[in-house]
Amino acid sequence: MASGSSSPSVPMTPLLKDELDIVIPTIRNLDFLEMWRPFFEPYHLIIVQDGDPSKTINVPEGFDYELYNRNDINRILGPKASCISFKDSACRCFGYVISKKKYIYTIDDDCFVAKDPSGKEINALEQHIKNLLCPSTPFFFNTLYDPYRDGADFVRGYPFSLREGAPTAVSHGLWLNIPDYDAPTQLVKPLERNSRYVDAVLTVPKGTLFPMCGMNLAFDRELIGAAMYFGLMGDGQPIGRYDDMWAGWCMKVICDHLGLGVKTGLPYIWHSKASNPFVNLKKEYKGIYWQEELIPFFQTATLPKECTTVQKCYLELAKQVKAKLGKVDEYFNKLADAMVTWIEAWDELNPSEKAATAAAGKPNGTAKGK
Amino acid sequence: MASGSSSPSVPMTPLLKDELDIVIPTIRNLDFLEMWRPFFEPYHLIIVQDGDPSKTINVPEGFDYELYNRNDINRILGPKASCISFKDSACRCFGYVISKKKYIYTIDDDCFVAKDPSGKEINALEQHIKNLLCPSTPFFFNTLYDPYRDGADFVRGYPFSLREGAPTAVSHGLWLNIPDYDAPTQLVKPLERNSRYVDAVLTVPKGTLFPMCGMNLAFDRELIGAAMYFGLMGDGQPIGRYDDMWAGWCMKVICDHLGLGVKTGLPYIWHSKASNPFVNLKKEYKGIYWQEELIPFFQTATLPKECTTVQKCYLELAKQVKAKLGKVDEYFNKLADAMVTWIEAWDELNPSEKAATAAAGKPNGTAKGK
Repeated sequence: MASGSSSPSVPMTPLLKDELDIVIPTIRNLDFLEMWRPFFEPYHLIIVQDGDPSKTINVPEGFDYELYNRNDINRILGPKASCISFKDSACRCFGYVISKKKYIYTIDDDCFVAKDPSGKEINALEQHIKNLLCPSTPFFFNTLYDPYRDGADFVRGYPFSLREGAPTAVSHGLWLNIPDYDAPTQLVKPLERNSRYVDAVLTVPKGTLFPMCGMNLAFDRELIGAAMYFGLMGDGQPIGRYDDMWAGWCMKVICDHLGLGVKTGLPYIWHSKASNPFVNLKKEYKGIYWQEELIPFFQTATLPKECTTVQKCYLELAKQVKAKLGKVDEYFNKLADAMVTWIEAWDELNPSEKAATAAAGKPNGTAKGK
Repeated sequence: MASGSSSPSVPMTPLLKDELDIVIPTIRNLDFLEMWRPFFEPYHLIIVQDGDPSKTINVPEGFDYELYNRNDINRILGPKASCISFKDSACRCFGYVISKKKYIYTIDDDCFVAKDPSGKEINALEQHIKNLLCPSTPFFFNTLYDPYRDGADFVRGYPFSLREGAPTAVSHGLWLNIPDYDAPTQLVKPLERNSRYVDAVLTVPKGTLFPMCGMNLAFDRELIGAAMYFGLMGDGQPIGRYDDMWAGWCMKVICDHLGLGVKTGLPYIWHSKASNPFVNLKKEYKGIYWQEELIPFFQTATLPKECTTVQKCYLELAKQVKAKLGKVDEYFNKLADAMVTWIEAWDELNPSEKAATAAAGKPNGTAKGK
């Protein structure tokens, strides 16, 4: 297999090799990793096995990974495991909370390596890392897109005081082939494929919400990890397929409050297979309805200036969810409680930076799958 | 010359042929039109001659145009001509106020036809018209960019209630080759060229400001024309090269208030020649400084709900400019007065829709250059 952008004769240390975990939620053997081998093999994987814990998930030889099934999650989190969804890819956020790295990349197991218009295989992870390591521009729109990219800059009229940008918390990548449509759109346009390669990375401006898809997503865990809760979905819940959306809206409100940036655009992955639109419709239909109330809620949510950490912001948002969305449906009271539990779990597994510094070098006490 | 996207053997009526004027500010012979002939020849041109009115501007054979020099502007506007800049491309807005069409496309005379990555010549005007005729999405960001474009749609998580979009008021096109940089960036990066063709049109979200460049710009004159005042620049003024920026910031605040959309991205033109960075620095330096106060002003400007027309919005904004920017520099008091004069001129030359309907078919009383 071609080795992508790196020449095999000149081995380079992959970017952030020891500072990034790849989180993969799955219910099947991970053969899809074969195609990613040249790009993912140097990194550590956190595999979150959904569904039946007695099933064995095969991971191709040579990958460095830990694997958690439902029994592991229950053992590690105890009663707090209730905040982790079951039978839904929302379970991936367990990988975020158990990781000890600064960065996370998460990808679905039906996503393959895409090619750019020149036919070259795209190292999605490398592009995400580039996105995360250079600043965002949430306060003013640059018409030539990412001003930090080679061959681009800030255009005339861009205030100089804003050219330092803001730290980038999230890099949202896109998908060629099967677009990420809701069930109604899938049903209406079953043959639509995304074949347009848009060669751009841009910052989602401050104050603007967007639909964050969890299929091909990277973030700075230290900056925003505690807000990356994928909610209560799937088994026993009235809704599915809104896990990433929920996380995206919460995360964006908090990033806007804390002055952090969110990018979208490159890199593309190849999304191989459309999920069943009839099954999706059943999972989504309440979300499609509730969403009409959720968006105004998030568009007008403001956080007090006392909220100086992601955790404080997230708990405040949970309070507002209960106060304002509880009347939309009882589900949101349950979700608000789960948001609080999530932060408790986060704080338990991720002692504060100060404590973390003091504890440096000590084993963290969590079970590892391998 | 190749005829671009239309086949010469199957003549098609160009889009909006009788509803759009092309406005070109110039000080030289318009040889650049030769390259645009296949695309512009069916349309009517309004040429605004800047500088010495005794000079003759040659327009290539076959184009349908009217031409106004400074003497014409003074005769038509009388004392109100003071709001039209002299010796600066800001004079182009005289073309907007004198036009009787619904749409305007304005282009600089150093802009040529660009090619897309397949080598095909880009009909910039046709793309602008497409942008203007389909809605914008200012209230929520769509990650696959323009959802109305062929092969794209609204992605999962995009509220259905927002999928009708908003009427598009402005289409801001980009430039290949010489990027639109300020003088300091020109000086630092003299060799930088923009060679990245980003195949996207997107809506600048509500609440987000951007640097609008007047080089390759189209708008719906009925929806937003009265806000497209390019300010007081050039001869006798302390500033230049902020004409389009000023218009863009005023326009965006008003579009946001009125629920109108602004798009940026495609189409590209080929920008042939960088202007002199030393001359530009002299024109810009006060703007670079003032801009740091202008941006917070426009970012926080709000219009009362009584402002239901573009004219009312614009007069309110002029009032706020005087109240809040007058203390930055005396220039802004003069500019605020000119903004009021501009609206007076607009109203004089553009009677209200009702009056316009009553007067349909009557000559409009303005002198025509040809």
